[in-house]
Amino acid sequence: MIILGIDPGLANTGWGIIETRGSQCRARAYGCIHTEKLDDISHRLKRIYDEIDKVIDRYHPTEVGIEEIFFSANSKSAVKTAQARGAALVACAQCGLQTGEYTPMQIKQAVVGTGTADKQQVQYMVKTLLHLEKEPRPDHCADALAAAVCHAHLVTWREFGHRQHIANPSATSYTQRGTRLP
Amino acid sequence: MIILGIDPGLANTGWGIIETRGSQCRARAYGCIHTEKLDDISHRLKRIYDEIDKVIDRYHPTEVGIEEIFFSANSKSAVKTAQARGAALVACAQCGLQTGEYTPMQIKQAVVGTGTADKQQVQYMVKTLLHLEKEPRPDHCADALAAAVCHAHLVTWREFGHRQHIANPSATSYTQRGTRLP
Repeated sequence: MIILGIDPGLANTGWGIIETRGSQCRARAYGCIHTEKLDDISHRLKRIYDEIDKVIDRYHPTEVGIEEIFFSANSKSAVKTAQARGAALVACAQCGLQTGEYTPMQIKQAVVGTGTADKQQVQYMVKTLLHLEKEPRPDHCADALAAAVCHAHLVTWREFGHRQHIANPSATSYTQRGTRLP
Repeated sequence: MIILGIDPGLANTGWGIIETRGSQCRARAYGCIHTEKLDDISHRLKRIYDEIDKVIDRYHPTEVGIEEIFFSANSKSAVKTAQARGAALVACAQCGLQTGEYTPMQIKQAVVGTGTADKQQVQYMVKTLLHLEKEPRPDHCADALAAAVCHAHLVTWREFGHRQHIANPSATSYTQRGTRLP
């Protein structure tokens, strides 16, 4: 199964493609869609839509794992990210992809084993789990690949009817849309 | 000139088409795109994208006026609206439309003459300015038409190099993206 992970952001949207075979996960590709602050908002959003569409067209994922918006004190920043997320999700829906949404805490839990992990821990574990030669940079790429791994966990559970860990014995639990899995 | 106004929302996105000839504005059509809460987020966003695309395809606007997100205490609600806004803006950008963004206060100022107008006042003035037989319902439609009228003011100013009021002598000032016009 090929899974697309997305870490949405108006200035930088990370994306990552992973392939799962049995209990193994491997990264196929990853990247970051950068948009210029000075550009018109609708053109920045169109760029995100177009680039995600190109990634889907090139790698043919069937599922998507995407980060939910983190509600911080900075609601202006959250609103910018949410618009980028909207553009990316439309591109996924246009291609008929199944989407799983995960909080940053759920994603960290899935790849590191604790929801309070820092960026360095996430990058290190993404590199290890996906057999990469180096840690993915910028961190938006690592976060996108981590979202894909998190979704892979759910898919595995859904397909086999019980929890199976994908090359990560430290991941102990995760949830989707607020529903804790057994 | 044909202008599309949009009042974005995840559950209800209002849209309105107005046509300007000289100093006159008339409504051509308006409506509301409703999405079901139980549906998947990506499918709700795709519906907004598809419906806005259909409106553009049918009425051929060349400009868009869209409401900016109101930063309230409820950031969860703002984030939902922002995702819908992202989907609608991508549809506009795909068709190469020029977009103007206006705060709710700027839109109220443009149609009622005061940024603190209530919904009833906006509905009444939209009906009056656009020569409608009745007030547009639901209020998302009136807000979308009001965003289009607000944008018409800017376009008129831009084209003639000085402020011209479009059938609304009460509108005294408006801004776009924080820039106060002379």
